Amino acid sequence: MKQQGLFITFEGTDGSGKTTQIRLLQEWLQQRGYRCVLSREPGGTVISEKIREIILDKSHREMDARAEALLYAAARAQHVAQVIRPALEGGSMVICDRFTDSSIAYQAYGRGLGEDVAAINEFATGGLKPDVTFFLRLSPEMGQRRIEGRQQDRIEMEKMEFHRQVCLGYEELERREPKRIIGIEASDSIEAISAVIRQRMEELLSCR
Amino acid sequence: MKQQGLFITFEGTDGSGKTTQIRLLQEWLQQRGYRCVLSREPGGTVISEKIREIILDKSHREMDARAEALLYAAARAQHVAQVIRPALEGGSMVICDRFTDSSIAYQAYGRGLGEDVAAINEFATGGLKPDVTFFLRLSPEMGQRRIEGRQQDRIEMEKMEFHRQVCLGYEELERREPKRIIGIEASDSIEAISAVIRQRMEELLSCR
Repeated sequence: MKQQGLFITFEGTDGSGKTTQIRLLQEWLQQRGYRCVLSREPGGTVISEKIREIILDKSHREMDARAEALLYAAARAQHVAQVIRPALEGGSMVICDRFTDSSIAYQAYGRGLGEDVAAINEFATGGLKPDVTFFLRLSPEMGQRRIEGRQQDRIEMEKMEFHRQVCLGYEELERREPKRIIGIEASDSIEAISAVIRQRMEELLSCR
Repeated sequence: MKQQGLFITFEGTDGSGKTTQIRLLQEWLQQRGYRCVLSREPGGTVISEKIREIILDKSHREMDARAEALLYAAARAQHVAQVIRPALEGGSMVICDRFTDSSIAYQAYGRGLGEDVAAINEFATGGLKPDVTFFLRLSPEMGQRRIEGRQQDRIEMEKMEFHRQVCLGYEELERREPKRIIGIEASDSIEAISAVIRQRMEELLSCR
């Protein structure tokens, strides 16, 4: 039987440098001969990208918080069924930009929807959890400053208080699951962050 | 304080004659001076209609059952928050073509997703339940025959076994909630069905 791949996710607010670190980790894994599947949430499949458009559309100011949480979960269910699970079972490493932790931070904490969000995502993912999650920690003020120049979507445009709640959510997750979630200061240098990630990956790969 | 409106839903497979009965009930209520809001699911708001397009798109053959259930719930959450709840609180009667019972019949039974579907919809609706539900009972074979001429969407195109499970789901719901759900043979005449609906409505309106 083929060895299953590792499921690696990156978390953190926009502007925390996830994209850069994902690219570096992908290169590093590929140089070591691992097949890698890169994906992002919400998105990653035709259906999930259509759901993403609805979620992030700036004109949807009337979006209900529960509808939003359910849309993220729907996009995730399709992504897991169609991309993530088959790739892992086929032996590939899967690196995903955001996963369930984002819904806990943004919907359970940011929107104040609480524990139900975890239950809905348990259903959506069929219980799939990342093997490791790299959380790039950044203050909400710094995060907002970093993305000031960019075109912002409906979520990024939220008020500062929302982003503060999101950060609290991430910190709580980190406390709850210190073994899975590796918190790293996003203000560290790209090289320093990358070194922490590689070290944790070496450990995980050597245990397989 | 304004008296809250009644929340009236119609259930049954496609081809069961819901549209005709909804129109007749609306006329009857309006003649009696009640304001009526008519809606349908999935749909009823700009965001929910966009979700509807994703759900029913015939090209989405790869749609995961869980993603589908979550999309229906997302459309419903938006519909409840933006249309149904405000209309009821404003004193209008709300007549809705399909609601949570459809998700129990089609997703919990038809797709075999079980009890989780009810929990997700409890979250989506914030616990809102119809005051009365008219279920137009039709055998799956007869239902398929009635819609043969129509353009069919992704759900209608499902195999006969799926439609049989949906019917079983509806029958189970009817057994569980006989007070709320009024089952009527869809093969009865339009006038006979309408008479049953009006009688139940008279009772409900006289108790207010």
